Amino acid sequence: MQYMPVTESMFLIAETRDQPMHVGGLQLFIPREGQTPEELADDVSQRFHAATEVSPMFRRRPATPAQVAGYTAWTEDDEIDFDYHIRQIILPRPGEVKDLLRYVSQNHGALLDRRRPMWEAHIIEGLQDGRVALYTKVHHSVVDGVTALRLLQRTLSTDPDDRSATAFWDMELVRRRRKRKAAEKPEKSLLSTITDAAGSVVDAAGQVAGIGPAAAKIAAAGLLDKNYVAPLQMAPTTMLNQSIGSARRFAAQDWPIERLRAAGRAQKMTVNDVIVAMCAGALRSYLAEHDDLPEESLIAAMPVSLHADGDADGNAVTLISVRMATDIADPGERVAAIKASTASAKKVVRKLKPLQALTLGAAMGWPLAFATVPGFVQYSPRGFNLMISNVPGPDEDLYWNGAKLDGCYPVSIPMEGLAMNITVTTVAGKAGFGIIGARAQLPSLQKILTHLETALTELEALPPAE
Amino acid sequence: MQYMPVTESMFLIAETRDQPMHVGGLQLFIPREGQTPEELADDVSQRFHAATEVSPMFRRRPATPAQVAGYTAWTEDDEIDFDYHIRQIILPRPGEVKDLLRYVSQNHGALLDRRRPMWEAHIIEGLQDGRVALYTKVHHSVVDGVTALRLLQRTLSTDPDDRSATAFWDMELVRRRRKRKAAEKPEKSLLSTITDAAGSVVDAAGQVAGIGPAAAKIAAAGLLDKNYVAPLQMAPTTMLNQSIGSARRFAAQDWPIERLRAAGRAQKMTVNDVIVAMCAGALRSYLAEHDDLPEESLIAAMPVSLHADGDADGNAVTLISVRMATDIADPGERVAAIKASTASAKKVVRKLKPLQALTLGAAMGWPLAFATVPGFVQYSPRGFNLMISNVPGPDEDLYWNGAKLDGCYPVSIPMEGLAMNITVTTVAGKAGFGIIGARAQLPSLQKILTHLETALTELEALPPAE
Repeated sequence: MQYMPVTESMFLIAETRDQPMHVGGLQLFIPREGQTPEELADDVSQRFHAATEVSPMFRRRPATPAQVAGYTAWTEDDEIDFDYHIRQIILPRPGEVKDLLRYVSQNHGALLDRRRPMWEAHIIEGLQDGRVALYTKVHHSVVDGVTALRLLQRTLSTDPDDRSATAFWDMELVRRRRKRKAAEKPEKSLLSTITDAAGSVVDAAGQVAGIGPAAAKIAAAGLLDKNYVAPLQMAPTTMLNQSIGSARRFAAQDWPIERLRAAGRAQKMTVNDVIVAMCAGALRSYLAEHDDLPEESLIAAMPVSLHADGDADGNAVTLISVRMATDIADPGERVAAIKASTASAKKVVRKLKPLQALTLGAAMGWPLAFATVPGFVQYSPRGFNLMISNVPGPDEDLYWNGAKLDGCYPVSIPMEGLAMNITVTTVAGKAGFGIIGARAQLPSLQKILTHLETALTELEALPPAE
Repeated sequence: MQYMPVTESMFLIAETRDQPMHVGGLQLFIPREGQTPEELADDVSQRFHAATEVSPMFRRRPATPAQVAGYTAWTEDDEIDFDYHIRQIILPRPGEVKDLLRYVSQNHGALLDRRRPMWEAHIIEGLQDGRVALYTKVHHSVVDGVTALRLLQRTLSTDPDDRSATAFWDMELVRRRRKRKAAEKPEKSLLSTITDAAGSVVDAAGQVAGIGPAAAKIAAAGLLDKNYVAPLQMAPTTMLNQSIGSARRFAAQDWPIERLRAAGRAQKMTVNDVIVAMCAGALRSYLAEHDDLPEESLIAAMPVSLHADGDADGNAVTLISVRMATDIADPGERVAAIKASTASAKKVVRKLKPLQALTLGAAMGWPLAFATVPGFVQYSPRGFNLMISNVPGPDEDLYWNGAKLDGCYPVSIPMEGLAMNITVTTVAGKAGFGIIGARAQLPSLQKILTHLETALTELEALPPAE
């Protein structure tokens, strides 16, 4: 038995049947030369089933079987029932990407069993383009979404001839990593530096986003300090901010990261800003289609690092609130407003001492902890309409046992009053957008994908910034 | 909005994430001459998607979105999101029956979304023998398991050339049935007589089994009446009587009904008794394998009709408790003890007035309602170890759009303290056994299938009863 900190147990306590608290990832692989999709899927399945030495993280489960509360400790299972946790299926004809997304939608709403380690790995064949998909589900009390993505990436290699691939839970990966760290110190490889930085950045982001009531007191103390202005604003009420059911709708697509970078260079904005601009244009169109575009701008919450760049020492991450300028029809003016908003938010945040910045993030995030209290969503003011996260990964091509990673999409968590979540990960030259929404509340969610492309095209058509 | 009786709402109230309260059915079909499995699966999918006029039963959902209690009314959705409710998948190679059972196991543990009509239909291809499976899941508040099976059977025809097949929720079926009833009165077809009788018998069985607290008072009144002896006994505590998680394990197999009938004739026992004898032998072996065979006999609860036979007027159904004689090693002695036990239980029950009989059944079943109270299972005495149900269906061969029904297996509900359920349905010449269990608590559940065959063979080897 192992003590469970509030940052882990709160995801168990906040979970309801309408608000499952697990994160997911969808990865697509191209079989290597001469390999059929069946062979790749069976290779994955066999290596997964053979990885019987499971790392402690994927063996632990809540120690108390009580239904309501009191999850205070972890226990560890010695044997893992792979026939339950590993699932292999083939999509029906025609095997389009939308059939894959439907499968993920249908499965992301189901709660994980708390009487066993809370994860599943789905190996999916049947795509007509010959790719093989891996959809993974892990409870947020075990890892945050970004750590999950990082763990998945650790099973990959930059070497297409590497044939030592295994499952993400394999203890062997932990040993390899320790060995590499010991050998490489002080000169780390480019890949491990980037993944480590991304990992620690977002481990902390997960904690801040979830720290809730425990942090509320700190937040209050911070507010008394009076040397910063809390940027809490009233976000408008939209269809994104409803009470939700458990059924999900998932949409995903990627764009070449170079396109986003080029647009950013031309407009003198960061890739993060480009992502916000794409989401702003897309949500403006989506809400307008549903007669629900508010007069005031949508407000997004985004986790950001407090450090300029490359500085990986520690957990200095906070949430900023960004005015998405969805009330502005003109793309050029909208982009200018977004740039101004993110710049000012970051400027304020960077002046803060780390604890103050963390406090700020916690103050923004704390209402999430009350989301399951009946009536709270309908009657409480909110600081933001949705969370948008950007999770950087390695830029190089990556392979699993010679099969090339061709797409990587986060599958995050809709919540009471926050029916949509957009998480983007940049890996191997592509920015993969994963848009998860409450199914009944957000119809035709997949249209956002078209709108994202339109918004990027509009951005590219703007005259370069001076 | 429509008032919800306690016999429906209690299945919503008693439901927890460890104890989903939906029933299921697994049906297997052989494609008709010249039809490939893909064509049959696509035919099912297309006709299901085309059945957009959905009967009220499959459009209703709980009106209140609250989490805890207060489910007092139904509301009806006008549009059904078929992309969510209808699911089509292909099993991975080799496509053995065990791969199908694994799929059902993996999916039967997931809760249904309460914000939409609570049912799912899974069309499953990929069996190497070329059969196509249909796995359906419906919430117990909407229908009991037997009504669900009856509804599935109503989509079938005795005519292999009938090409009017549709989905089980199609309003057209309701209209056809009304028309047939009007035309056939007073002479009903054999098929509709049998299915109607089976249906009403078990509609009531579901109500009695679930009537719980509402009936407790009646039960108490009945006990004060003193003109019958309540047969409540202490059942031994076994691995079947544990606290459970949500993960499931499903095993299914069928036997020619003629084999069971012949064995019954030779031993002068009913098919029901033969089923109990098979389960008794199988559970004795299963528990012995796990070093958990109790010294006292297991006790099974079985729903039975109060009428001798064929008499279909009304809901006179109760639960009887049967001593399974699992403490007796000799097959002949065990079978004799089972015959004596079921005969005496039925004799007692048949002497009761209907209300008393219902009261008896309710008194046996009421602890189920307390099963979700923490600690109840571990510390309370129980009247039985598992429920065994036998649901008769029509004997003729049945077809869905020309595809022959080749197997029909109920998928019922394990509960707190009742980790296993065995339900048998006799359709088209076969007795289909569906054994559902809590996954972590009942390892190697599929071995029961071998033990059932052994027990039947032993029964057949006994000298004929005098």
